Amino acid sequence: MDSPATTSQAYTELLDHQRDASLLSSTASLLGWDQEVMMPPGGLEHRSRQLAQLAQMVHARSTDPRIADWLSACEADDSVTKDPLSDAAVNVREWRRGYDRSTKLPAALVVEMSETTSKAKAEWAEARKADEYARFAPWLDKIIELSRKQAECYGWSDDGEPWDALAEGYEAGMTAAYVEGVFTPLRDRLVGLLDRLMGAGAQPDNGFNELELPIAQQEAFVREVSAAVGFDYGRGRLDVSSHPFCSGTHYADIRLTTRFAKNNVNDALGSTLHETGHGLYEQGLPAEHLGTPRGNAVGLSIHESQSRLWENQVGRSRAFWTWCFPKLAQYFGDAVGGLSPDAVYAAANRVQPSLIRVEADEATYNLHIMIRFELERAMLKGDIKAADLPEAWNQKYRDYLGIDVPSDAQGCLQDIHWSMGALGYFPTYTLGNLYSAQFFEAACEALGGSDTVHGMFERGEFAPLLDWLRTNIHSSGNTYHSAELCKHVTGKDLSADPLMRQLENKLLPIYGL
Amino acid sequence: MDSPATTSQAYTELLDHQRDASLLSSTASLLGWDQEVMMPPGGLEHRSRQLAQLAQMVHARSTDPRIADWLSACEADDSVTKDPLSDAAVNVREWRRGYDRSTKLPAALVVEMSETTSKAKAEWAEARKADEYARFAPWLDKIIELSRKQAECYGWSDDGEPWDALAEGYEAGMTAAYVEGVFTPLRDRLVGLLDRLMGAGAQPDNGFNELELPIAQQEAFVREVSAAVGFDYGRGRLDVSSHPFCSGTHYADIRLTTRFAKNNVNDALGSTLHETGHGLYEQGLPAEHLGTPRGNAVGLSIHESQSRLWENQVGRSRAFWTWCFPKLAQYFGDAVGGLSPDAVYAAANRVQPSLIRVEADEATYNLHIMIRFELERAMLKGDIKAADLPEAWNQKYRDYLGIDVPSDAQGCLQDIHWSMGALGYFPTYTLGNLYSAQFFEAACEALGGSDTVHGMFERGEFAPLLDWLRTNIHSSGNTYHSAELCKHVTGKDLSADPLMRQLENKLLPIYGL
Repeated sequence: MDSPATTSQAYTELLDHQRDASLLSSTASLLGWDQEVMMPPGGLEHRSRQLAQLAQMVHARSTDPRIADWLSACEADDSVTKDPLSDAAVNVREWRRGYDRSTKLPAALVVEMSETTSKAKAEWAEARKADEYARFAPWLDKIIELSRKQAECYGWSDDGEPWDALAEGYEAGMTAAYVEGVFTPLRDRLVGLLDRLMGAGAQPDNGFNELELPIAQQEAFVREVSAAVGFDYGRGRLDVSSHPFCSGTHYADIRLTTRFAKNNVNDALGSTLHETGHGLYEQGLPAEHLGTPRGNAVGLSIHESQSRLWENQVGRSRAFWTWCFPKLAQYFGDAVGGLSPDAVYAAANRVQPSLIRVEADEATYNLHIMIRFELERAMLKGDIKAADLPEAWNQKYRDYLGIDVPSDAQGCLQDIHWSMGALGYFPTYTLGNLYSAQFFEAACEALGGSDTVHGMFERGEFAPLLDWLRTNIHSSGNTYHSAELCKHVTGKDLSADPLMRQLENKLLPIYGL
Repeated sequence: MDSPATTSQAYTELLDHQRDASLLSSTASLLGWDQEVMMPPGGLEHRSRQLAQLAQMVHARSTDPRIADWLSACEADDSVTKDPLSDAAVNVREWRRGYDRSTKLPAALVVEMSETTSKAKAEWAEARKADEYARFAPWLDKIIELSRKQAECYGWSDDGEPWDALAEGYEAGMTAAYVEGVFTPLRDRLVGLLDRLMGAGAQPDNGFNELELPIAQQEAFVREVSAAVGFDYGRGRLDVSSHPFCSGTHYADIRLTTRFAKNNVNDALGSTLHETGHGLYEQGLPAEHLGTPRGNAVGLSIHESQSRLWENQVGRSRAFWTWCFPKLAQYFGDAVGGLSPDAVYAAANRVQPSLIRVEADEATYNLHIMIRFELERAMLKGDIKAADLPEAWNQKYRDYLGIDVPSDAQGCLQDIHWSMGALGYFPTYTLGNLYSAQFFEAACEALGGSDTVHGMFERGEFAPLLDWLRTNIHSSGNTYHSAELCKHVTGKDLSADPLMRQLENKLLPIYGL
């Protein structure tokens, strides 16, 4: 994957320029982390000013008109672009993508969107609090209208639609048709699986998920687990924030956060393993290419595939709990005395249709995402208006999840995303789940089969899996876009089959089916 | 102290420019804090690059040639400079000081000093480790030579000397003659006091200083005390670092650090109160002038006066321990059962001549500083060479502290400062001690006398003292330089009398004299 040293002067200058911008962005990223994790409340106003100053400087660098000249020179230089998978060609391809996108919107539209979403976010928060959807509806209409204008500026392919133009901002090459192609069979099979599980005689006992355990011990426990699966604390930290996240300032300084509740160690463990997965990806990026696309993560859905793989394929496996169960006694003593590995494993895999996406289990989570994808796509096409949203939302919750939505606050007002103008974002979560399952199947095949890999987990051996991910996914940076990477690594296009196979194989026995 | 609104266009542009530079500096300051307190070891290389980038951008702003034009226009504009104590005049005065200083050194000398000290620091560390002064001596000679060149570029007044030109970089208006004027009587009286104390029959029991206490409780204890004296945790934090410091990113986001050892809660409390004093100063600066000299602290010695005041005048008083002693039982239970308030008070005030400055007590600390001042002044004058330093150093330790220096590692190699080219810095520590004593006397007088103020401490009432400091010192920002501020606030020039009076009044009875 190495390219021959290029002698292009334009490439060298562009590289320096972009690395400088990337370095400055990493400073903003650290300030963002500090704001969520460390900053005292009084610091907010000054922090906003610091971040605005950095954002302005980064924006000036990434829209510098010299970039257009450098890019043209590089693209015309065969020594740079001859091999499309060379480091230089990958960088030029991505810098072109970023530069064109950042210069396509007229300034007036950027300002109008920014002002609108700033107010819309506040209105959304009030509307959700008061459970008054009518208050938010006109703002959503306005955001849809501006989003359509944005999409028109970005453009989409002849067989595409407006949604594609927005989704491209979160994931290169992601189109509604692509998403629909994998979501439709997934939805049908998930709804079928859910019917069977909910019809089963006995449901897994939820006791472990409600056990009160001291937070200091929970913290020591999840820290040990994250280190055991491979997170390098010499190149990272774990702290606490209300919404867990992974801040990837730099591959050797990765900051994870998690959250703790007295009566939900499984949530703390799941959140920690999820963010650890993001962190392992960042720690595995190729150091020599840092500050360039060749050294960056692919995009949101591949990042999510890494977090979900460690959270679900590893952390919700029977083999993981065989290894991990004795640690519970070690950290929590008598409080977990009455539990068995089976009970904990079943509790970690409990499926329960529910109203709120962020609290959903591994299986039903994807149905929440599909509902959002279908609705935002329809709104962007003009098929439904903001006024129609609650009814359409509630109907889909009945159809896919079999539950009635009692209020808009617990329904179509629950997510902040649309109020921020983030349309086209939601599917990356479920694409991540699908990629994780397909990658995990490929990893198992390469490592001697699923039984062999689960045998490793039982002995606490996670390095072979991590090494496989490092070699096949992390080290290639952003050389391939997500769909290509999937094909390259697994030999197949993305499909709903691996995820559904894994869910069925795991959940049906737990439910005695 | 308010100035009429100025209409000067030059002033407005300069203000915007300098606030922008100050904002960027505050970002670098946060990254520095994070590096000491939070950053994982792996982050060092990338952090150095981030800080170098910010330093380069801040330097470009603070040496922008437009500043010279703006300053000239402001200085010629009567509406800006008519009242020398107006906000605008103070800002212009300090910006002029900073700009002239930052543009006086030729680039070649800056580079040579930077390269020399970078290597000298490493050599110093090795020399100290191996106790081989000869290894460091040539580097010190080189640093002295370059420092003299720097001093010549900066210049000094006709009745001054090279040391003044360097000291000005740490404290406006600080000259060797001024320092000598207050240090000489202080030295004579301190040496005399030390003779009496060391000749006393009984020495205070050191038991409390060696008690093993759990660090989690120590932390809760010092946190309560710092909040009780007035540190606002809504606008600040307290963390742990190997060398305690206060990072003043912004008056509403002040980060203190302290350190803990199992068997030295007094050190943790002293360090915390010391940094709390720095933090109270920063939290008390006038918010509306932030990012300008009018909203900045005066300089190093006034900053140190605030930290020492809370550490010594408050935290080592009998009245403080009357209030604080019951908390010891509350946090440490039976472990402190055998102690009395008198024993703890005496232990907190134990005087013991020793080799290492940073471990010295309140009284002998100043003798360590004077030795460094006298020696760096002599080296800059050319009166002694680096080769003569150990002998001169050891002689002064015998003369002032009555102790023999067994090795250069514990002698003239103990401090990092000179290896970094920081000559002229040390005296700010003792000036801080002198200012703190003089300010405290003035505060007592204003608040009804020393007995009244100590009565407040006994009841845990620290707000009146803090309010006095806010009104008389913090709120004026950098309007007055240190010597003027002292005169303005206390009505007198700085003198050794208040500190010596307080030390004698406190220590002689403790030693039964």
